[in-house]
Order: sequence, then structure tokens, then C-alpha cells
Amino acid sequence: MLNQDTIVALATPSGAGAVAIIRISGNNSIAIANEVFQSVRNKDLTKQKTHTIHLGHIMDGEKTLDQVLVSVFKNPNSYTGEDVVEISCHGSVFIQQQIIQLLLRKSCRMAQPGEFTLRSFLNGKMDLSQAEAVADLINSDNEASHQIAMQQMRGGFSNEIAKLREELLNFASLIELELDFAEEDVEFADRTQFKDLVNRIEFVLKRLIDSFAVGNVIKNGIPVAIVGEPNVGKSTLLNALLNEERAIVSDIAGTTRDTIEDELIINGIGFRFIDTAGIRDTKDVVESIGIQKTFEKIEQAQVILYLFESLKFKVQGSEHIIEIQKIRNKYPQKPLVVIINKVDLLSEQELNTIKAELETLNLKPETISAKQKIGIEELKNTLLSFVNTGALRNNETIVTNTRHYDSLLKALEEIQKVRFGLESGLSSDLMAIDIRQALYYFGEITGQVTNDELLSNIFSSFCIGK
Amino acid sequence: MLNQDTIVALATPSGAGAVAIIRISGNNSIAIANEVFQSVRNKDLTKQKTHTIHLGHIMDGEKTLDQVLVSVFKNPNSYTGEDVVEISCHGSVFIQQQIIQLLLRKSCRMAQPGEFTLRSFLNGKMDLSQAEAVADLINSDNEASHQIAMQQMRGGFSNEIAKLREELLNFASLIELELDFAEEDVEFADRTQFKDLVNRIEFVLKRLIDSFAVGNVIKNGIPVAIVGEPNVGKSTLLNALLNEERAIVSDIAGTTRDTIEDELIINGIGFRFIDTAGIRDTKDVVESIGIQKTFEKIEQAQVILYLFESLKFKVQGSEHIIEIQKIRNKYPQKPLVVIINKVDLLSEQELNTIKAELETLNLKPETISAKQKIGIEELKNTLLSFVNTGALRNNETIVTNTRHYDSLLKALEEIQKVRFGLESGLSSDLMAIDIRQALYYFGEITGQVTNDELLSNIFSSFCIGK
Repeated sequence: MLNQDTIVALATPSGAGAVAIIRISGNNSIAIANEVFQSVRNKDLTKQKTHTIHLGHIMDGEKTLDQVLVSVFKNPNSYTGEDVVEISCHGSVFIQQQIIQLLLRKSCRMAQPGEFTLRSFLNGKMDLSQAEAVADLINSDNEASHQIAMQQMRGGFSNEIAKLREELLNFASLIELELDFAEEDVEFADRTQFKDLVNRIEFVLKRLIDSFAVGNVIKNGIPVAIVGEPNVGKSTLLNALLNEERAIVSDIAGTTRDTIEDELIINGIGFRFIDTAGIRDTKDVVESIGIQKTFEKIEQAQVILYLFESLKFKVQGSEHIIEIQKIRNKYPQKPLVVIINKVDLLSEQELNTIKAELETLNLKPETISAKQKIGIEELKNTLLSFVNTGALRNNETIVTNTRHYDSLLKALEEIQKVRFGLESGLSSDLMAIDIRQALYYFGEITGQVTNDELLSNIFSSFCIGK
Repeated sequence: MLNQDTIVALATPSGAGAVAIIRISGNNSIAIANEVFQSVRNKDLTKQKTHTIHLGHIMDGEKTLDQVLVSVFKNPNSYTGEDVVEISCHGSVFIQQQIIQLLLRKSCRMAQPGEFTLRSFLNGKMDLSQAEAVADLINSDNEASHQIAMQQMRGGFSNEIAKLREELLNFASLIELELDFAEEDVEFADRTQFKDLVNRIEFVLKRLIDSFAVGNVIKNGIPVAIVGEPNVGKSTLLNALLNEERAIVSDIAGTTRDTIEDELIINGIGFRFIDTAGIRDTKDVVESIGIQKTFEKIEQAQVILYLFESLKFKVQGSEHIIEIQKIRNKYPQKPLVVIINKVDLLSEQELNTIKAELETLNLKPETISAKQKIGIEELKNTLLSFVNTGALRNNETIVTNTRHYDSLLKALEEIQKVRFGLESGLSSDLMAIDIRQALYYFGEITGQVTNDELLSNIFSSFCIGK
């Protein structure tokens, strides 16, 4: 799979900016760059030290394409482990295209998505789970997912797996050795120590598998359904929740403004808000389709917010009560938060009446005014209380990747077979098969065991230029 | 205006990509970067050579924000002429924000639009017209505008102005010297030589002023009105014209796809196509508003294309003839190209009949089939023939900037006064005033004469990070 082509791609986001980076990697990258680069000091790029930067022009024959800075990285001290050149040019789309086209004519080829990182993996600069963390890191949009990706990229998770795999491999070879002396009935592998190891592995695997639930939520955001009629104040509420964070973001002009309206980050944890209509009783066919959809949306959520307006409770109170009961009956497991909006428009007495009525259902409503920013902090804390952030705070390893999760489940299954084998005195040859399978699944995570299909699955989801 | 703050900004386009560059400039940039950077080899950034790259992590206290490459540029050998650090981090928006926020806490401040280039100008790294060319370069989206911006950035245009200014300055000082000896009636400045210089300056100024018409068209694209009914084949025609160029663009995955539908680049020259409806006679009020709009659009165009379908000419021929005549009467100066589309559906005889009818109006129609790609090259050449590309080919200096154009006009006016003064034997003291004014306008172009308002006007149109 590792080929000798010299590959090129734009490494910075597409579009116009002050600066763009064009990245070249491969055996001939420095020589090719040297062909199109005219140093202001007549330097020969092929004779420069690694990690140095050179000012000059990219020339297409006699025509100057741009004034650029060229960075030289020599193998193995580069991202890919190969010779790498990065051209820092002016951020015009036209110039980017011209330079890339010139390099293509000089026998570079366009890089595939993730090909730089793939080469990095194939050249042993990082293991597979670290390579996957690069993509996670680029996609991370909040504190928690960023922290997990950083940890994984630095090898926290795969180091643990690799170490256990190493130990298991030792025992495996001892047991395979026993097979060679099968007729002599020797035991090279100390069964007590082995059992200890298997127990340890099982414990670690279970912990990692359990962490996936948290990891998944952190990576994708916690889905929260908001049940509420139009104009009940949903977007005002979202804005109020978002308030501080948005302020921070827009302080930094030049960073993206592409915030997805119904995705919020609260104290570094992502929440995805799913807007749903109400589910009142109806005989109208069209409306009952709407209700069906509301239930489907609630189905996807992990938390349900039920939002209504304070002033309308007098007339609609009983309808709301019925609605809330329906939701509760259908989803007894899902945390349900009832929120009374526009609470500033009520007298304390009126509010107490509503609260009393909800208390008969064992509900303690949150009282807010989205507009006046009353009760917002309390609501944030309630939302955060549904997330198990303990693991995050304790810096524990968290699995977020479905592929890893699958491999861990399969490894656990095999390890449990091994343990059962040990307990029931299974013969070494049969046990050896289970151990080999477990080793296989461990290897899948770190990339010690791999194949082209797996790799192309993983790296095709990367962006080009990474 | 030049202050000692250390400024920071994202230099790459906003959004997610493989890599993002955060740029820091100012006296403390290296020290500040060193505070948040932990080199993998424990290097002290402040002790590194200029133009070197260092691998490590950006640390917010104990927390790792990202693994990065840090490039160090020491004054005066940097873009701004100050100490500059560029942090190349993973292209996640979240990470970009985190790192910039960290640097802001470490006493950097956000850069204003164009502030890096402003500092470059104030530190004498480039003159004002070169600084302006940087923005033009980033905005250039075709061969011609790119070439002009490159030429201007390399000083082609301002060198010429600066040299003439220098010579004029010499004479100015001689003439001012004469004023000191006014009672002795001496002439230090050789009037014949001076007259020669003034003539030369006038010639150059006129040439540069004339080039603005071409420059402006090249910079903004040539506006072309297409008059034609819906479904007559306009978008097929635009696609056919665009064909090759678009193919090149989309070969390079990862570069932008934001092509504006009705903007075409033909042989490196930009054309902006303005879609208009027909202008047939009508008594319908609504439709006559449409006709009004059509005329307004034609007004903005420099070239008019009149497109109709071959098969429909039999029934609508006379209407088309009337319409074409109307346009011609209203805009006798604007080149009008009549295009018969779907020419492959006609017999040669039928085609000749149409041509004969158009010839009575002195019109030679272009015959095309947008779908079959017939006649497209010929049409391209016709369009290009309306552009004076001679200047481009001869590598002449072209003025594209309205500010420069204004200053050139004013300088010309003053120089003409000086010439008139010389011819009419005006006294040195009066002539000195005109010369000083001419010098002032020259200086405005290159930035030798400047003020805060002018600078903030120029640089506020830059993007942040440049």
C-alpha cells in the first residue's frame, strides 16, 4: 500500500485567506519543489537542513506565480516520515490552483483523503488509533471531545492496549511452545500468572467498553428533545444558554461563524437540541402524523425538555399535564425536565399554584425567563448533571470510536473464552486458538493487524491534505 | 501609528482543514510563544535561529491544547519586519480558538484587518502600492489580475513612480534654492533639462492613466449582457464557454468549488455575464417594468450578446430584428454580438436566409450549438477581441487601483501646471508650489506621503491575519 509517489494537496481550508499551505510528501518532494522554487538568495533546496524556511518565488518557467516561504522537512523527521515540503503562499484560490497544477505537471499527484496520515502510519510514525485521533482532533468542536482526541493522539489508549497485547503475546508463545512438546505434558506458561493476566485484561476491556457510552455522547453531543409549541421561546432559550460561549467565539474575528443553530456547548460538553412540536390529543389525521414524528424524535434523545409558557398554563394546564404524563409513560427511563418560561410574568402565588399541580406528578419544574436570563445557570447545571463527566475529570481513557468499540467487544469475548478455558482445564492447543483471536482484535485497534480495506475505510473519511 | 503591541490572528481561511496557521508579530512574539510552547526537545524558542521550525505542544498550564510546529522569524527578516512566530496547528476551529484565546491571555491582542501588512509598510519592508498589491493578489481570481498584482507587488509600478519623483525632487530642491538667492536672479535648475523631465513625467503619467481603463476591466471582469429569452440556451452556452477551465479547477479536489455561476474566465480574462430578458414591444405594465430593467442591465455592460434559437427565427424573426435595432439605436457605442444557437438543427439554406436578413442590418451573426460545442472557440475569440490584451502581453505597467488613478490624475494636473509655468516663464516661487503638489501626489501612491486616515482606509479592506 505504501507507494513511492510524491503527493501534493492543499493543507489549509479551501477559500481565500491571508496564507495557504500546499503540502508535498515523498522521495522526490524536495527535488520537485526545488525545480519550481527560486530562492531570493539562490539557495538549493536539496542542500538545506531539515526544519528550515526559505523565502523565494514559485516560477512556472519565466512566469512568477507567487512569492512564498518554503519549509523543508527531511525524513524521518516529518509528519509522514518522508521528505516533506510545505509551500506557504498567498491565500488566493487562483494562486493555490496554479501552484498545485504546476506541481502536478512536475510529476506530483493529488493526495487521497488522509493519505499524509496514512503514510505517517505506514512509516511507523503513529499507530492506527493515533492516526484516527488526528481526524477526531480536527473535527472536535468542544472541550471534551478535544481532550479525548488529544489523549488518544498521544497514545494514552493504545499504549494501554499495546502493553496488554505484549504480555498476552508472551504467554501465547509459551503456550504455543507447549504444543511442540505436547507429548511430554509440560507447562511453560505459569497458569496462575496467566489467570491473573487474563483477569486484568478482562477488567481493562470492560472498563474501556463501558467508557464508550460516555465517549459516544461526548463525541457527538448529547441529544436533547425540546417539546414545546412554536413561539414558546425555544430559540430565546437556546440563545440564552449559548450566551457566554457565543460571546467568546465572536470575540475572535476571523474564526468561523458557522455555528449550527441547535447545537450548544455548555461547559465544554456538546448538546444537540432536537426541536419537536407538542403531542396533544387530536383526531386530525395530519396532526397525528406530526405527533408520530414527535415521538420518533424523542426516541433519539437522551434527555427530554418540556417547555411551556407561564401565562398559558391557566387555560392549557390540564392539556400539558396529560401530555407530560404520556411522555413519561412512554419513556420512563429518560430524564424529563419541565420548564416554565416567562416566569417573570407571574406572581409568586400563581407560580406556586402551577408548581403544586406539577408536584402531584412528582415533577419539580425549572422556572426560567429566557428573555430576562433568569434561571439559566440552574438549567445548565441540570443539563450537565445528566452527563457523567466524572471520567473526564479523572483523566480516564475513554473510547469514542465505534471501530475500537467493536474490536474491544470481540477481544473481550475471546478473553472470556480463554478464562473459561483456563478454569475448565482446556487443552493448550484449543486455548491457543482463542488467544490468537484475542491478539488479533487487539492488533486491529493499534493497527498491528491490518488490511487494505480497513485502512481505506479509515482514511477515506479524512479530509484531503491531512 | 506603529505601536509596540504583539498582535495575533488566524492567517489561514476560517473553517476546518488539515492545518491552520496562527501568526504572532511584535517585540514579544517569540517570548510569548515560548511561554505556551513545550518543545519535544526542550528547546528554548528565544534562543533559536531565524527561519527554523520546531515541533512541540501548546500548553495551557498543564493542559495540552495541540501538537504543533512553530516557525520562528527574527526581525528584520520577517513579513512584518518584526519578530514573528507562526504556529501551525491542527485545523480544528475549536483548537484555533483555544490557542488564540490563550495567546490573548498572554498579553497578545487581536490584529486589525491588514495590520501585519501595515506593519510591514511602516517598517519599510514594502511601499504602499506594494502593500495594496498584497490584497489584490489574494483577491485575484484569474490570470490577468494575478499577473498585474504580482507585478505591482514586485514594485514594477511604484519603482517607476519613485524614480520620477526622485528626479523631480532634485529639481525641486534646486528651484527652492533659487528662492534663497531670489535677489541675485540665478538659475540653479537647468530649464531645458527640467522641461525634458516634465515632458517625460507627463508622458508616463498619461500612459499609466490610460492603462486604468484596461486595468479596471481586468481587475473586475468585463461585464457582458446576454439578451435572450428563458430556455434559449444561456446556461448551456456559459457551460460550454467555461468547459475547459472548469475541468481544470475540479481536477484539484480540495480547492474551492465556490464558482459564481455567471462569472467566466476565458484565456485568463474575467467576464461577468449579466442575464437579461428580452425587450419586445408590449403594452403590459408588468412586462414593461421588465423591459426597463433589461435596459438598466445593458447599461452596466460593455459588450452585448443577443442570443436566439435558430428554429424560432421563422416565426419570431421580425420581432428579433426590431429588438436588435432598438438596442443598437440606444447603445451605438457598445459592441453587439448576435448569436444563433442550435445551429445544427438548420439546413445550410435556412441558415443562409437568416444570415441574409441580418446582413441588411450590417450584422454578422455568430452561429453556434452550445450543446454540440460548435462555434464556441470562435465566440471566445470574438469576446477576447473586445479586450485590449496588448498591454498585458507586452508586460506593461497597468494601474488597477482607483486610489492610484486619482493620485495620478492629480499629479498630472500639477505637472501640467509646472510645464505651463516653465513655458510662460513663471517665477520660481510660484512654480515651486506646483512642484511640491506634484511631489505630494506621487508620494501618496508609494506611501512616502501618508496619514492615518489614508492608511486605515487602505488596510481596513484587508482580511484579518494578513
